[in-house]
Amino acid sequence: MDTSTTHRTVFSQRANQITSSAIREILKITERPEVISFAGGLPSPEGFPVAELQAGFDHVLETQPAVALQYGRTEGYTPLREWVAQEMSREGAKVETDEVLIVSGSQQALDMLGKLFIDPGSRVLVEAPSYLGALQSFSLFDPQFQSVPTDARGLVAEALDDDLVRDARFIYVLPNFQNPTGLTLDLERRQILVQRCADLGLPIIEDDPYGELRYSGEPQPSLLRLGRAAGATVIRLGTFSKVLAPGLRLGYVVAPRDIISKLVQIKQATDLHTAMVTQMAVYEAVRTGFLKDHLPKVRALYRRQCGYMLDALQAHFPADAQWTRPQGGMFIWVTLRPGIDTGVLLQSAIARNVAFVPGAPFYAGVQAPVNTLRLSFVTVPEARIRTGVQVLGELIGPAK
Amino acid sequence: MDTSTTHRTVFSQRANQITSSAIREILKITERPEVISFAGGLPSPEGFPVAELQAGFDHVLETQPAVALQYGRTEGYTPLREWVAQEMSREGAKVETDEVLIVSGSQQALDMLGKLFIDPGSRVLVEAPSYLGALQSFSLFDPQFQSVPTDARGLVAEALDDDLVRDARFIYVLPNFQNPTGLTLDLERRQILVQRCADLGLPIIEDDPYGELRYSGEPQPSLLRLGRAAGATVIRLGTFSKVLAPGLRLGYVVAPRDIISKLVQIKQATDLHTAMVTQMAVYEAVRTGFLKDHLPKVRALYRRQCGYMLDALQAHFPADAQWTRPQGGMFIWVTLRPGIDTGVLLQSAIARNVAFVPGAPFYAGVQAPVNTLRLSFVTVPEARIRTGVQVLGELIGPAK
Repeated sequence: MDTSTTHRTVFSQRANQITSSAIREILKITERPEVISFAGGLPSPEGFPVAELQAGFDHVLETQPAVALQYGRTEGYTPLREWVAQEMSREGAKVETDEVLIVSGSQQALDMLGKLFIDPGSRVLVEAPSYLGALQSFSLFDPQFQSVPTDARGLVAEALDDDLVRDARFIYVLPNFQNPTGLTLDLERRQILVQRCADLGLPIIEDDPYGELRYSGEPQPSLLRLGRAAGATVIRLGTFSKVLAPGLRLGYVVAPRDIISKLVQIKQATDLHTAMVTQMAVYEAVRTGFLKDHLPKVRALYRRQCGYMLDALQAHFPADAQWTRPQGGMFIWVTLRPGIDTGVLLQSAIARNVAFVPGAPFYAGVQAPVNTLRLSFVTVPEARIRTGVQVLGELIGPAK
Repeated sequence: MDTSTTHRTVFSQRANQITSSAIREILKITERPEVISFAGGLPSPEGFPVAELQAGFDHVLETQPAVALQYGRTEGYTPLREWVAQEMSREGAKVETDEVLIVSGSQQALDMLGKLFIDPGSRVLVEAPSYLGALQSFSLFDPQFQSVPTDARGLVAEALDDDLVRDARFIYVLPNFQNPTGLTLDLERRQILVQRCADLGLPIIEDDPYGELRYSGEPQPSLLRLGRAAGATVIRLGTFSKVLAPGLRLGYVVAPRDIISKLVQIKQATDLHTAMVTQMAVYEAVRTGFLKDHLPKVRALYRRQCGYMLDALQAHFPADAQWTRPQGGMFIWVTLRPGIDTGVLLQSAIARNVAFVPGAPFYAGVQAPVNTLRLSFVTVPEARIRTGVQVLGELIGPAK
């Protein structure tokens, strides 16, 4: 029986406006094994600490099953919150345990921040381009996006003035190895950003999923640390998806107490709390300082992979193409000569079993350039990176 | 440094309207070990199948770590979706795998259904009283609640007419051992409900967290099964929280494909997907039919606990008090004589280290009676049930 024709269901306006994400549609195509996919945003499973996580699950189910399997506090498992607070404090931003909220992955934090800040028509500042998942998440609450330009040094913080910021609810920034550009906000820009946001009273959402995956250059102070020193309000999002594994769905929010308190009320209505067993198992895995040994291995792996792709681009892409050289993370951003539409290019590429993500969907509140694309390099073997980039180079053709 | 005073943060209207739930505040008090708490809604940890779950986590991390720890499909782990579809079909409602969506606990389904259906001011029908967590979740999307009366046979389905249903987006129903009343919707009422909803084009959200915890009386057909036969649109919510353990945060939605498809897009923006490792471990635990042996033990435990409380109420509560006699689940609903305010009673009870939840917060869209209360019996030892109920009986005093 087909039940989908028998009812007279009325969806909300927001639900009617949702469309399937461009990336989601592309990823379906790339599930075919013959496709060389630079489209995904998956971390490399070679970096998953399986034994440590298994030991963590075993330990908590053996020693504290009645806690691990029971309902828990919405704020999160206290020892894990303490661990996050200590990690932040070690980085230089003094953080207390009650300024930390555990969430079911960073994406959930974006959903809850949309609920917290966005009324229909509220202005929201985002980088051009920005993380597509954040744009989708915020979109459910019907904001008016205002884009802030970026250049090779990251977000152009100097552009933030009274006019741009007026009535905006927040600015959303990925300061390290940004998704999609791979770019990092430099120190001077960070300082200008936090100072302007402090002066203008604009909260900053600092999304930093990749910060621990730096494989070249010097670590930069977090916006949380700089912002607190400057008197700005910073809400920092972190995740275990890239330093441990994304299948755990575990992340955290660090923010002033009044914001955490509201987010806790929102989270209670959203999913009660994040799975206790996962929080406790991850705490067991990280409490002994295991990440200190683990992360250098992941960084070395990602550095190698990034190098393979940069070499291939150098060898096979035309001289009038430009691309970023990330100091960490998972993405390279390519700008082709004007006149090339990467949406069209993608169709030809898929016909030759190569996939990437066109750049346009990453823009909101601004006319999107159609000659950009995002390449992800971490899960593709070296030889396939070379082959795939060569195919793309052929399709793009020589410089004009 | 106190950062909470330095910023000029503007929250959304919805965030400004959220208040901490009455139950949440009560639960904080009941964390003191000397308190006999009938306030919580926690399943008994005696019913958690620890060994089976541990074996499940071990198995998936040993055999498929790169899948269990990687990002997964938003729809959920396919074998678990198939298992849910088979369980539903076994009950009598033929369900296909693509009519199933795995969620991070039933509470998340409520959040996503709010996103799917509710525009500001949309009418939403709920039982009087209803599950507080659903009222909170829907409230974030600013509906206009319309309450539907209940009596000893559950929701008064006969009350559903053109006037009541006009422009409503859905009716939200807990048909089995309802939270908070413990009441079950009888078969005749179920049939009237689905037929009226089919005729009036009103989608039904059937929330059934407790259905498998029946310890007396005959199982009733699900609204999904009856509704599909009648041509009504039914969205059924199920959870592993009560049959396995709530700390896993794992539930599911069964609905027509067009609704599942929208919910998948919403879930992607909400938390990408539910933790793979948990879905796979639970699948391992349930695939062998283990629940068939496990559930009778949980039911026997809950039946005993319910009996202890019913006996204590008979012994210690005045003759002018009334209470429900649930056929399953975790809650008993008490109606005291008019004139008693259970909010006031709670203060006296807490002073004597006994806690419960007053009934008023469970009502929306209607004047709430103040002489009702909810008692949860599953986690309190027999002697403490007797003592706690005796204290309440003394505070209520003899019949008038």
